[in-house]
Amino acid sequence: MKFNKNLENIKTYETGKPIELVVREFGIEPKDIIKLASNENPYGTSPKAVAAVSDIVTKMALYPDDSMIKLKNGLSKRFDVENENIIIGSGSDQVIEFLIHAKASSSSKILMNSITFAMYEIYAKHVGANIIKTASQEHDLDEFYALYKEEKPEIIFICTPNNPTGDALDAQKIYDFLKKIDSDTLVVIDGAYMEYAIAKDSSKEIAVKKLIEEFDNVVYLGTFSKAYGLGGMRVGYGVADHNIIKELYKLRPPFNITTLSLEAASVALSDEEFVKKSVTLNLEQMKRYEQFAKEQKIDIINSYTNFITFCLNSNQDSTKISNSLLKKGMIVRDLSSYNMNAIRVTIGTEEQNSRFFELVKQFL
Amino acid sequence: MKFNKNLENIKTYETGKPIELVVREFGIEPKDIIKLASNENPYGTSPKAVAAVSDIVTKMALYPDDSMIKLKNGLSKRFDVENENIIIGSGSDQVIEFLIHAKASSSSKILMNSITFAMYEIYAKHVGANIIKTASQEHDLDEFYALYKEEKPEIIFICTPNNPTGDALDAQKIYDFLKKIDSDTLVVIDGAYMEYAIAKDSSKEIAVKKLIEEFDNVVYLGTFSKAYGLGGMRVGYGVADHNIIKELYKLRPPFNITTLSLEAASVALSDEEFVKKSVTLNLEQMKRYEQFAKEQKIDIINSYTNFITFCLNSNQDSTKISNSLLKKGMIVRDLSSYNMNAIRVTIGTEEQNSRFFELVKQFL
Repeated sequence: MKFNKNLENIKTYETGKPIELVVREFGIEPKDIIKLASNENPYGTSPKAVAAVSDIVTKMALYPDDSMIKLKNGLSKRFDVENENIIIGSGSDQVIEFLIHAKASSSSKILMNSITFAMYEIYAKHVGANIIKTASQEHDLDEFYALYKEEKPEIIFICTPNNPTGDALDAQKIYDFLKKIDSDTLVVIDGAYMEYAIAKDSSKEIAVKKLIEEFDNVVYLGTFSKAYGLGGMRVGYGVADHNIIKELYKLRPPFNITTLSLEAASVALSDEEFVKKSVTLNLEQMKRYEQFAKEQKIDIINSYTNFITFCLNSNQDSTKISNSLLKKGMIVRDLSSYNMNAIRVTIGTEEQNSRFFELVKQFL
Repeated sequence: MKFNKNLENIKTYETGKPIELVVREFGIEPKDIIKLASNENPYGTSPKAVAAVSDIVTKMALYPDDSMIKLKNGLSKRFDVENENIIIGSGSDQVIEFLIHAKASSSSKILMNSITFAMYEIYAKHVGANIIKTASQEHDLDEFYALYKEEKPEIIFICTPNNPTGDALDAQKIYDFLKKIDSDTLVVIDGAYMEYAIAKDSSKEIAVKKLIEEFDNVVYLGTFSKAYGLGGMRVGYGVADHNIIKELYKLRPPFNITTLSLEAASVALSDEEFVKKSVTLNLEQMKRYEQFAKEQKIDIINSYTNFITFCLNSNQDSTKISNSLLKKGMIVRDLSSYNMNAIRVTIGTEEQNSRFFELVKQFL
């Protein structure tokens, strides 16, 4: 059977065995496996959200409230915007999907950083769009602007803090950049890790209300998967001028968020204490990683997230080191697929981090 | 800002207030509202699935197992196929989305019944495909074949039992039809309500293994939203030749099913007793609806699902009657948007159905 041409350029995502199962094949007990690979919140989820979901677990037969009124009210209050400025996706991933399907086609260009969140490129390929990447590893907005002038992309993705490198842009620099972009170019500011960035340096904070009031071509993305501790529940959001949201809504499948996910996110959003605790502990533990890197003479990228990227020396091999760690039950992210001789480590709990330091020392 | 041309033909899905909130504005207490509008399982969810989800509610911070190995193993065992024959979607809706995006474009034609599941048309519009509909209200495979010869559609949707009418085709008729269709035309057999149909008449049962072995252009769809009592958790699936599944996988976003949904569906699938109880009680209660319709001299469509469609007389108005019921706290589905003077009622529990009969009598 013939399929659409776009699919020829997409690699089948091979879902192999879960990595935990692979590690168990090395004879490691599940309790001894530590996963610092997916930037999940190591402190779990707000206990209030856990309690709220437990209370409605008998309601799984009932379709979700498709107006998502409770969660939208919470988000509009948080950002001081209207409900019509918000769209909720199955992870911010799905909002990225809506944006690309709404604005791009096989004749479009999409501009993004050389190293950034993989889903921008994956969804761009779904519609067969041309992907334009910067040369610099960190977001260089001068380079972005030069490529914008030269290539005239339909969409520009800016990820701050950036994944998988952890660096973040000053908000003011982003505002200055946006002023130079024409109003028919869609600019996406992905703030998936923003809660962590703000705690470290408030100059990284995007003023979302001001942003969407000033720029009717900009979408801000956020997620409940990181600081809010709901990676498993698939809830993210986009905030933008209502004219953009209205178009994205045309592509939203009904009931795209589960009944339990809506409740979990609504309650997690209101539990500011849990988020504050998570980002505070993260900052404390990050200092240990910085200290460790210094002692071991490893370069790190200054991180504004809940992970840290170790840039290895030429006599070290990120794939070898990751595999050695795997055999000890420690799962981290090898960045060789990004053409970086680096490993990305989620900043875990005190105990998990101590174990990481102890293990990795053997392989450096 | 300009968006893709396809979007011009899509109406923004206006998410108003949840209907429960509307009903409450009539001064009705939440406990007195009965919703027989969304074909949810009135007996809830398998208690085993509820217990299993309760057990892992503290794991919401962890990303789902993206290989979905447990659920896939369960489904492949159920249908006696291989894991590579299965794709899991956020509801079978999402598998429909993958199918249309993989096979259709703005130059494509998609053939479906005049009255059928609304998402086929909605996703077809996302890619700007041309929608070809039969004239007959029930699936008439001779008419489908004539349109197939005439229009040469890329995709044919057959919904059996059909939603929102409830009628079902004999499986043999479907096999005979498929033999006449060329192998580059994708045929989708949507069996969302199949568990209910089989309980009433085994000649409606599609032999899934045989189907996909014999026809490498056919996809069978199933869902956990109906008999399995997981409407709120968004889990459906497609079963097909591995060459089709491989292409669909290219369009699957990672982590498209939540951590709790995977567990809920895996356990619900293994609790055959719950499904059996649900479909048995449904059949018993359906007889009451049939009896009621006979007494009230209302035409019904013989239903193979967990809902029943009342086709009203010309001196009755489906919108008026639905609204009158709404004001009494009884939510049913008015089918006027399908150009039918009919109401669709989910077959509820004994008590809910008694209340429906009592109320609707006042408005007939």
